[in-house]
Amino acid sequence: MTARVKEILSWYGSENPGVKANLARLMNTGKLAGTGKFVILPVDQGFEHGPARSFAPNPAGYDPRYHVELAIEAGCNAYAAPLGFLEAVAGDYAGDVPLILKLNNSDSLAKVGEPCPAVTGSVEDALRLGCAAIGYTIYPGSGERNAQYEALRDLILEAKAVGLPTVVWAYPRGAGVSKEGETALDVVAYAAQMAAQMGAHIIKVKPPKDFLEQAEAKKVYEKYGIPTATLRDRIRHVVQSAFNGRRIVIFSGGEAKGTPEVLAEVREIAAGGAFGSIMGRNAFQRPKAEALELLAAVMAIHAGA
Amino acid sequence: MTARVKEILSWYGSENPGVKANLARLMNTGKLAGTGKFVILPVDQGFEHGPARSFAPNPAGYDPRYHVELAIEAGCNAYAAPLGFLEAVAGDYAGDVPLILKLNNSDSLAKVGEPCPAVTGSVEDALRLGCAAIGYTIYPGSGERNAQYEALRDLILEAKAVGLPTVVWAYPRGAGVSKEGETALDVVAYAAQMAAQMGAHIIKVKPPKDFLEQAEAKKVYEKYGIPTATLRDRIRHVVQSAFNGRRIVIFSGGEAKGTPEVLAEVREIAAGGAFGSIMGRNAFQRPKAEALELLAAVMAIHAGA
Amino acid sequence: MTARVKEILSWYGSENPGVKANLARLMNTGKLAGTGKFVILPVDQGFEHGPARSFAPNPAGYDPRYHVELAIEAGCNAYAAPLGFLEAVAGDYAGDVPLILKLNNSDSLAKVGEPCPAVTGSVEDALRLGCAAIGYTIYPGSGERNAQYEALRDLILEAKAVGLPTVVWAYPRGAGVSKEGETALDVVAYAAQMAAQMGAHIIKVKPPKDFLEQAEAKKVYEKYGIPTATLRDRIRHVVQSAFNGRRIVIFSGGEAKGTPEVLAEVREIAAGGAFGSIMGRNAFQRPKAEALELLAAVMAIHAGA
Amino acid sequence: MTARVKEILSWYGSENPGVKANLARLMNTGKLAGTGKFVILPVDQGFEHGPARSFAPNPAGYDPRYHVELAIEAGCNAYAAPLGFLEAVAGDYAGDVPLILKLNNSDSLAKVGEPCPAVTGSVEDALRLGCAAIGYTIYPGSGERNAQYEALRDLILEAKAVGLPTVVWAYPRGAGVSKEGETALDVVAYAAQMAAQMGAHIIKVKPPKDFLEQAEAKKVYEKYGIPTATLRDRIRHVVQSAFNGRRIVIFSGGEAKGTPEVLAEVREIAAGGAFGSIMGRNAFQRPKAEALELLAAVMAIHAGA
Amino acid sequence: MTARVKEILSWYGSENPGVKANLARLMNTGKLAGTGKFVILPVDQGFEHGPARSFAPNPAGYDPRYHVELAIEAGCNAYAAPLGFLEAVAGDYAGDVPLILKLNNSDSLAKVGEPCPAVTGSVEDALRLGCAAIGYTIYPGSGERNAQYEALRDLILEAKAVGLPTVVWAYPRGAGVSKEGETALDVVAYAAQMAAQMGAHIIKVKPPKDFLEQAEAKKVYEKYGIPTATLRDRIRHVVQSAFNGRRIVIFSGGEAKGTPEVLAEVREIAAGGAFGSIMGRNAFQRPKAEALELLAAVMAIHAGA
Repeated sequence: MTARVKEILSWYGSENPGVKANLARLMNTGKLAGTGKFVILPVDQGFEHGPARSFAPNPAGYDPRYHVELAIEAGCNAYAAPLGFLEAVAGDYAGDVPLILKLNNSDSLAKVGEPCPAVTGSVEDALRLGCAAIGYTIYPGSGERNAQYEALRDLILEAKAVGLPTVVWAYPRGAGVSKEGETALDVVAYAAQMAAQMGAHIIKVKPPKDFLEQAEAKKVYEKYGIPTATLRDRIRHVVQSAFNGRRIVIFSGGEAKGTPEVLAEVREIAAGGAFGSIMGRNAFQRPKAEALELLAAVMAIHAGA
Repeated sequence: MTARVKEILSWYGSENPGVKANLARLMNTGKLAGTGKFVILPVDQGFEHGPARSFAPNPAGYDPRYHVELAIEAGCNAYAAPLGFLEAVAGDYAGDVPLILKLNNSDSLAKVGEPCPAVTGSVEDALRLGCAAIGYTIYPGSGERNAQYEALRDLILEAKAVGLPTVVWAYPRGAGVSKEGETALDVVAYAAQMAAQMGAHIIKVKPPKDFLEQAEAKKVYEKYGIPTATLRDRIRHVVQSAFNGRRIVIFSGGEAKGTPEVLAEVREIAAGGAFGSIMGRNAFQRPKAEALELLAAVMAIHAGA
Repeated sequence: MTARVKEILSWYGSENPGVKANLARLMNTGKLAGTGKFVILPVDQGFEHGPARSFAPNPAGYDPRYHVELAIEAGCNAYAAPLGFLEAVAGDYAGDVPLILKLNNSDSLAKVGEPCPAVTGSVEDALRLGCAAIGYTIYPGSGERNAQYEALRDLILEAKAVGLPTVVWAYPRGAGVSKEGETALDVVAYAAQMAAQMGAHIIKVKPPKDFLEQAEAKKVYEKYGIPTATLRDRIRHVVQSAFNGRRIVIFSGGEAKGTPEVLAEVREIAAGGAFGSIMGRNAFQRPKAEALELLAAVMAIHAGA
Repeated sequence: MTARVKEILSWYGSENPGVKANLARLMNTGKLAGTGKFVILPVDQGFEHGPARSFAPNPAGYDPRYHVELAIEAGCNAYAAPLGFLEAVAGDYAGDVPLILKLNNSDSLAKVGEPCPAVTGSVEDALRLGCAAIGYTIYPGSGERNAQYEALRDLILEAKAVGLPTVVWAYPRGAGVSKEGETALDVVAYAAQMAAQMGAHIIKVKPPKDFLEQAEAKKVYEKYGIPTATLRDRIRHVVQSAFNGRRIVIFSGGEAKGTPEVLAEVREIAAGGAFGSIMGRNAFQRPKAEALELLAAVMAIHAGA
Repeated sequence: MTARVKEILSWYGSENPGVKANLARLMNTGKLAGTGKFVILPVDQGFEHGPARSFAPNPAGYDPRYHVELAIEAGCNAYAAPLGFLEAVAGDYAGDVPLILKLNNSDSLAKVGEPCPAVTGSVEDALRLGCAAIGYTIYPGSGERNAQYEALRDLILEAKAVGLPTVVWAYPRGAGVSKEGETALDVVAYAAQMAAQMGAHIIKVKPPKDFLEQAEAKKVYEKYGIPTATLRDRIRHVVQSAFNGRRIVIFSGGEAKGTPEVLAEVREIAAGGAFGSIMGRNAFQRPKAEALELLAAVMAIHAGA
């Protein structure tokens, strides 16, 4: 095992060997094995946005095998999906790539104002499917946030006892934040901090914009001259906000966009000290060859090549 | 063990030896060991106010190790924080300082009128992390107060059964009290009384102002000539309101301010018979050397030096 | 055991021996032992009204030991209080006087229209503290009454299973009754009947006034010539309303007042066939010597001396 | 993943993905990764034979770190040991090599005729320590065999539910077999069959000798001309006896001996179609350099190099 | 905390912070605080041998307060006893000295050949009494050993989950060992190894004699020239046998004897690298002044003074 992986594991000193071993498994898989960097393929859009919105751009993606194969061929550290997508492939691809079972998911059918995901899987599922981690989404700022936090607390404790670490998707949203505020620097940094305080082992947030949402926070950012102009500065601040870089923070790319834009963004993310990228639509909505090329480029950037 | 510590323990005559032993552990640690006085370092602002507002003034504080080391070096009786901050250090600093796991926390992202904290940890967490107590915040006067009281009741009972005492942060707030009333003498004294009636072993309130909120109470304060003019008088009344001084009541300093103001306030707090101070922002937002100097001065005051 | 106590126990024929034994314990304690009469000292005002309003008139009462000692010295049948006050004394005074754990309490900080008490203790607490009964307050006529009734139902059942009887404080209040109606004869009698129907073993109500609140009821009181003019008549009607006197009904004195007024009222209460008095503020807000004198006089009245 | 590993996994078609993923993990680790062959380092002799008999020949082995490091450096598929040896290293070496928790162990202090191992660990332990499998020893032919089989049945089912495969050490011994019969061909083949029938995922037996124990069996071996003369023939028969080669069967080397003898035996074992070797004393009782050399040679043989 | 204590804690890398904190508590208490050495006072003879055999030599010891006070005044790291002795003192001496609840005990009334202790306490008891560890006795070599091992396994797992380490008394005895063999070097070393393999955090054995019990072991001791002549050599071998000194091994003094003999033995124990002494009868059967003098001398030896 590399010194860097050992160093990262040392930040999780209160965890049992099972949790550490699964964190190591994630870090020792794929093209980025040993670097302490991550590129994860997540495919939860089928549940979250519906099948056509998710898979019509690249109809191969209707097939659950497509995604796990994409993750394997690309050399991702892990593949994350809801229960059904994992069950459809976990047996046939057992041992091919670490799996992350996304335990809660929101759908877009019920048009409620506040996000309110359903818990669609369990720690028991994660074990029987051979997963290396569980995943869970919280919506800081939303009316239902406390119920989400309290369910997360129970799941982390349950997962930990059986050696599974937890990846938390932290998406500020809802009554407490403006639309623009969802990716405001102060809000994203705050979401990362909260996920870390609740015991998340890996934290996934969106790249923050050069915008400050909360008046009280804005004063502090200005008074202490926290740089917000470049994405790399903002990434650095978010990573710092997750226990001074002692928790693994990875960034999504958000909506699908062109390759140059994606790579430019990833370069900034890497320059800011992020631990990696989690790339869904930008990967699986492209034709496979293009997706592999893109993921290879993203990995190269994170590897510092 | 000193006679004073034995005396304080005697006030908790219905508790099992485990709860008493942990109360003793808190009183026999640090520079104030044996005096029956407390200086506790609490760091929950990362969750409550966000990372930048909490740690930008002294960026060393983004690192979870900073705070536990500050508490150890300063000779505090205990270090209190939410789950994540404790997990990040409990293994490597096991046995170095008593830990208090703050079991509920409010965040500032959700702009709700009434405070509504999430329960982000459990008694089981407190045991596996080797904590000496649990902590819990109630908001007397708020719309959700009863849910908080009832959850507190269950947690106190659960914690007690495994030998853990409970520290209650009692912050009047919400629809039932005016902004000024949050630190009114009658309100703070009332909050301390309620915390004691619910079984709190240690009660944390804010220093009360010379203001009376409730008309019914005001009549009584005037009729019986309860002194309210000086802070030490008001502290004395709050301590009296917590079972005539037979429950441990400690006071926070509130917002960060200058050293002379902090020490002047602590002098009054000590003169009023408080059991100590719980000092967060005023400690960790200063550079470490200054913080150590300040905490030493605060301890000296409480020690009666 | 006296024939009278046996007779009273015979009214509770469906109860298990544990419940009966604790009812007997209450009736065989203190100066009124064996008479089937009660004088109980309740001290929940610290939580309900705040510390200064409760204890400033007689500051010795800030100390939890004061009240249990008052109950013991006066020869009360029992001492009733919330969790914290009992925990502060139950160990050191174990076995000195039967304790009643008041399981729910309202506070006066939250200015809500409808009374909405929090459940601040449990049957488990009552057992570990060695209590002889649990206590619970309902607010017939209030918007939240059904939640209170349903919680009471569960608690009575739970308490009964472990041999604990239940004392119900029945205070009509809220949207369903006028201010004057809270002590209207028809309303108080109705509240006593409801408490008895819900399984209360001991019922505590306020002395009713010569006023009828409900139009439908008024017609009946007039048609059948139910006497309402004297307090003793009204007391007799309330006792009759609680299963024709086959449930123990005791009366409070309400707000603090002068000794002659208190004793005059108690004389009427006794003459009406009440099972006793429950006397809080009129006892503990007096200097101790006066309180002991007053309680002795009240007991003498109930003893028929 | 190699086609061979996929093929082997296809034999375990009734298992959940978790069990398959852990079998894959064992097969994709170390120098033999991808070949479907195994070399496992087991160190349970400290418990089974005592410390001096186990570690005096190479005192470095008193230290629990020695063995896990030997397994890692040698490139073994897994390291198997009782609870204490795994606990001593699982945290610091998390993720470095798959661990197998041996759940039952016999000691040599109690001079009982029949082997009677104690269960010294649990599936829960295996999960929290991050193990890839559990291990369990049965003694076919012994008086206590049925208790062992029934405990094994429960453990396999429990382990399977959480994604853990089971390695069964099958050692014929006890009243039912003669001393020579313990390694008789018919007996070893029978033991392998029974382990497979009970649901073992990996079966560990001793290399069988050219001897037939049971009269009834002997007739059949002779009637059908089952070859028994060479070790490779006998190995082939044992592998055939474990579901015609569709269960992983590995062979131990037994007592410590010289390198040429060990390698000669391993060559026969490999030639007979075994899935690998499990090599304890012959590895850890040699000086480390020699052990690494030997293990490399053994792996080379199994790899078909 | 001293570097030595930190080093010792590092050997327990798979444990949660709670277990580490309690190990630290044991090592940071008393006169040997910070040295990593232990002197523990155990008093289980009342149950094991009967009261007169235990306490008649120094009748002050009939009183449970005597022993805990002796441990406190002497500056022991901990006081170990069965449930009743701890319950008799844990409340009044809460926090004065770490307590170890001995969970199983054998009595001498039932004259059975094989030792067969009863489990007389629980992990729940240890928590409510505020203990820092549980204790458990195994009798390797006895007919009932496996039942003891399996109960121990469950207790260690249960205790660990709530942050309590386990002290194992390992006393070879029963059908498997001769009377002389109970303290044979090979047997004691084997018992220490087994305790460590079962997950004991602290191991207590008797000082081994210059005798080898088992023929198989004897060959090895002779072949490899393991020194057995001096007690310090034998102690060194036992400590080595407990994970090469990476588990805490402490030694009892056995039967009461004269001070010079005790100290001479302790000097050898310390010279052999033991982590300390556990001294019962030799301490509490002496008059208090003598006992304090003796314990001070024992501590001085372990401290290297």
